[in-house]
Amino acid sequence: MLKTIIYPKREDFKILCKRPEIDAELLMNGVTHIFQEVEKYGDEALLKFTDLYDNVKMDSPVFDTTGLYYDQIPIPAELKAAIQIASSNIEKFHLAQKSRDITVNIMPGITCEQKIEPIEKVGIYIPGGSAPLFSTVLMLAIPARLAGCSQIILCTPPDSSGNIHPAVLYAALLCGISEIRLAGGAQAIAALTLGTATIPAVNKIFGPGNQYVTAAKKMAQNYGVAIDIPAGPSEVLIFADQTSIPEFIAADLLAQAEHGGDSQVVLVSTNKSIIAETMICLAAQIEDIPRKKIAKQALDQSFALLMETESLAFDFINAYAPEHLIIAADSPGKYQKFITNAGSVFMGNYCPESAGDYASGTNHTLPTNGWARSYSGVNMDAFCKKITFQNITKEGINALGQTIITMAEAEQLQAHANAVKIRLTL
Amino acid sequence: MLKTIIYPKREDFKILCKRPEIDAELLMNGVTHIFQEVEKYGDEALLKFTDLYDNVKMDSPVFDTTGLYYDQIPIPAELKAAIQIASSNIEKFHLAQKSRDITVNIMPGITCEQKIEPIEKVGIYIPGGSAPLFSTVLMLAIPARLAGCSQIILCTPPDSSGNIHPAVLYAALLCGISEIRLAGGAQAIAALTLGTATIPAVNKIFGPGNQYVTAAKKMAQNYGVAIDIPAGPSEVLIFADQTSIPEFIAADLLAQAEHGGDSQVVLVSTNKSIIAETMICLAAQIEDIPRKKIAKQALDQSFALLMETESLAFDFINAYAPEHLIIAADSPGKYQKFITNAGSVFMGNYCPESAGDYASGTNHTLPTNGWARSYSGVNMDAFCKKITFQNITKEGINALGQTIITMAEAEQLQAHANAVKIRLTL
Repeated sequence: MLKTIIYPKREDFKILCKRPEIDAELLMNGVTHIFQEVEKYGDEALLKFTDLYDNVKMDSPVFDTTGLYYDQIPIPAELKAAIQIASSNIEKFHLAQKSRDITVNIMPGITCEQKIEPIEKVGIYIPGGSAPLFSTVLMLAIPARLAGCSQIILCTPPDSSGNIHPAVLYAALLCGISEIRLAGGAQAIAALTLGTATIPAVNKIFGPGNQYVTAAKKMAQNYGVAIDIPAGPSEVLIFADQTSIPEFIAADLLAQAEHGGDSQVVLVSTNKSIIAETMICLAAQIEDIPRKKIAKQALDQSFALLMETESLAFDFINAYAPEHLIIAADSPGKYQKFITNAGSVFMGNYCPESAGDYASGTNHTLPTNGWARSYSGVNMDAFCKKITFQNITKEGINALGQTIITMAEAEQLQAHANAVKIRLTL
Repeated sequence: MLKTIIYPKREDFKILCKRPEIDAELLMNGVTHIFQEVEKYGDEALLKFTDLYDNVKMDSPVFDTTGLYYDQIPIPAELKAAIQIASSNIEKFHLAQKSRDITVNIMPGITCEQKIEPIEKVGIYIPGGSAPLFSTVLMLAIPARLAGCSQIILCTPPDSSGNIHPAVLYAALLCGISEIRLAGGAQAIAALTLGTATIPAVNKIFGPGNQYVTAAKKMAQNYGVAIDIPAGPSEVLIFADQTSIPEFIAADLLAQAEHGGDSQVVLVSTNKSIIAETMICLAAQIEDIPRKKIAKQALDQSFALLMETESLAFDFINAYAPEHLIIAADSPGKYQKFITNAGSVFMGNYCPESAGDYASGTNHTLPTNGWARSYSGVNMDAFCKKITFQNITKEGINALGQTIITMAEAEQLQAHANAVKIRLTL
């Protein structure tokens, strides 16, 4: 169970901020082999690995969506309604994030612009396994479509009969995704990186996955393909003040802990009794969840921190830079200004992390393992590039030319200076 | 000299888009050793490597800026004026890029926000060598300061007498940088990654450098430190129509070619005679530049493409995704809509790349090696994270709760559903 650390010193922060080690390098040999095979043999290699790892023989990874309409897909009406509400909230929040082109008049004859361009080809990876992560389809396909990406390929492993899970298919079709490929694991990432006859090489790959997928995404970068965010196990940090509700905190800790044995959950408070009460609730609630074993494993490597002051608590929180941060308080707003490093923040006693995982509108693809110190979660920017333009007329270069020449010559780049000089004289 | 390829086929694009290979892996052993030494011995190791690679014995990497004011720094008045004009243009354009916080009312009781937070600690690396790259100081320090980064550390190798180049110092002080460390190479990147007694560990490292610096920046990511952009040799692609001026094109090709023997310059046109005339101008102009030998080496591995149609030309340009793209034309505006992949674009016959390298206002830290397909150049976003917040009240969770429960249960994450249920009932 969660161990409690009382009044940790500032010097201890560094150790407390360390996440369980993950070593992608170890898997690199296997992943390198998969990339080599897919590079050489294309779909043939892809299908061989699908047979080997997903235990299903397929003729082609293509899942034909021609003539399919999302409303025909056989999933419960209640689930359709839920996915539609979530989709609408996600769309609303991401649409508001859209950056606009800007134009700045720098000096007479010189105008600079920043133009937003969608990344042309993006790959979305949706893991298979026991549970179909249709929510991740929404989180990645909606901003990709809003950004205007011209080709969006969704890869997900086939089930044992070579099919796609209907909820994943429903979400994909609802988001307007028509290019679906049934391929998973490192081989799917290799195909999206290198291209095969049926899977186009993309410019950027998004989506979660197991350690092989993570290693393969790392490898993809060596081939000039960008990825969304460095991956790591999911994590939550809950800050609780005296107005927080231990039953809710315990439920939120368990929601995170059920993700995987390597998930990390952290409780931070200046209030001793809240921590103690949470432990009691945790012990009671954990008995009732199906993934109890996994949750217990995660809790065993997690901790609660009793802090001397709220100021020190937020110093720790920002040093830790949690993927998910819950402010468990009646008046969470007063803490907002202290938050500088976090992926997504859940404000108030009635704001569980699950809300953002599914339906509040924020994205659930977030920086783990302290990357929130420098990375944003997936947002509209992640599907775009910002290209700069400078328009310079003869008048403009006449005005700025000597400045450029002086600087270029001071940097001993004479040809740089010449490119201006020739325009001033000719 | 530049070879001309006549009417390349679409199938040839892939080969033509390949840049000269760079292999950072080869250097990794040396860089790993440097990281290990700096991790173990801190400043002692750093100073040892400074002695070894920069040939200067230093007592400390700290360059004390106390009491120094930029205007006292002994560089020519003309250079000061030029740097100030450039600085003012860069500031103007980057200030306009500042993203604003957004707040979206999703449904009654649910509000989502996206808040911009500066990355706290950033490291700026400025290479030494023959020419002092003070322009890069402006390009990185100005947006870092505008973004509000609370700690900005500038590392640059000392010269042979243990000093800093006055133009670099002038630019740094002008930009309000007070934390300067005289350290270079992979050891400087290791120090910024791991921290030493005199150099704080940062969250993100910016700046160009040789292949050791590039390999070290790659290594930094394994330690959880972000970097600006994957690095590669600089490059320019010039699109010339019948209104372009061969003398100018030749000068721009040479300005890029003088950067390094591994630079790549490409000329694309549907106009045969423009290409031929450019070759004549190139042969004449190259004789007059000091870095002729380097430029020749770069030109030898570069090419001109004669294309059948403008449409095919832009298909190639976007496939190549050049770091710098010059639209050498009287009316460049008509081509703007065709440009989807480029770092920075120079519009018009009177707009040399040198303008953006120094003073037009755009950033010169740009994606090379085709990364413009998925990456932006350094801009204000590069110094910020966007954190999402969701504020949910009791009313909000009552409205959205069932949606979340339905989705969580369909993904077989019962504890996720429970975290909502408990809030609906308690």
